[in-house]
Amino acid sequence: MIVKVSVLYPNIEGSRFNMDYYCKLHVPMLQQKFGAACRQAIVEQGISGAVPGSPPTYLAMGHFYFDSVEAFQAAYRPHAAAIMADMLNYTDIEPIMQISQVKS
Amino acid sequence: MIVKVSVLYPNIEGSRFNMDYYCKLHVPMLQQKFGAACRQAIVEQGISGAVPGSPPTYLAMGHFYFDSVEAFQAAYRPHAAAIMADMLNYTDIEPIMQISQVKS
Repeated sequence: MIVKVSVLYPNIEGSRFNMDYYCKLHVPMLQQKFGAACRQAIVEQGISGAVPGSPPTYLAMGHFYFDSVEAFQAAYRPHAAAIMADMLNYTDIEPIMQISQVKS
Repeated sequence: MIVKVSVLYPNIEGSRFNMDYYCKLHVPMLQQKFGAACRQAIVEQGISGAVPGSPPTYLAMGHFYFDSVEAFQAAYRPHAAAIMADMLNYTDIEPIMQISQVKS
C-alpha cells in the first residue's frame, strides 16, 4: 500500500506563503526528520482553477509518501512540535491535512 | 514544466461515489480521450484527516499530468461534454478542479 500525506494550503487572500523557504528549508527538514520512512516528497504550486486565470483553491501543496499510516505516524509524532514551529517561518495559513491511499 | 490537473471530490455525507467505476471506466476513458498528452493518471482514495479516524476532506482525487496548461486544455476541450456526462455514472459530487505546477 502507498499512503500519501497531503498538506494543502488554502489560497486565502492576503495570506503569506514563502515558496522558497518551503522548498529549500521546510521540506528538506521534514525529509531529514522522517528519514527513510518518507519514500518521496513532492511540492506543488497552484496555478488556477478549471477556468484559465481563475484563482486556485490551494496556493501550495506538499505530498509525502509512506508505506502505511502507521509508518507516517511513527515518523511524524516525535517531531510534530518542531515541524509546527517551523511553519510560522513560511506561512500564516492553517493547512488542511489529508491522508489518502494511492490506488493506481 | 510538469502541470498537474487535480480533480478533488469533497467528502459530503450521503453523497455517492463509485470508486470501482471511476478506476475501471472513467479514468481509462479520460486516458483514451487525452491520448499521449496525458503523461500519467493517478487515483487516490481518502483515508482520514490528520487525526486517525477523522473523516478525510476529499473522498477521492484524480490527478492528470500534462506538459503545459495549453496541452491539457487542447486535450480536454473537445471531450468536455462526454467527460461531464460520464460523471453522473459514478458520482453526484461536484468536484473541485485545480491546476498546479509540480515544483519537485
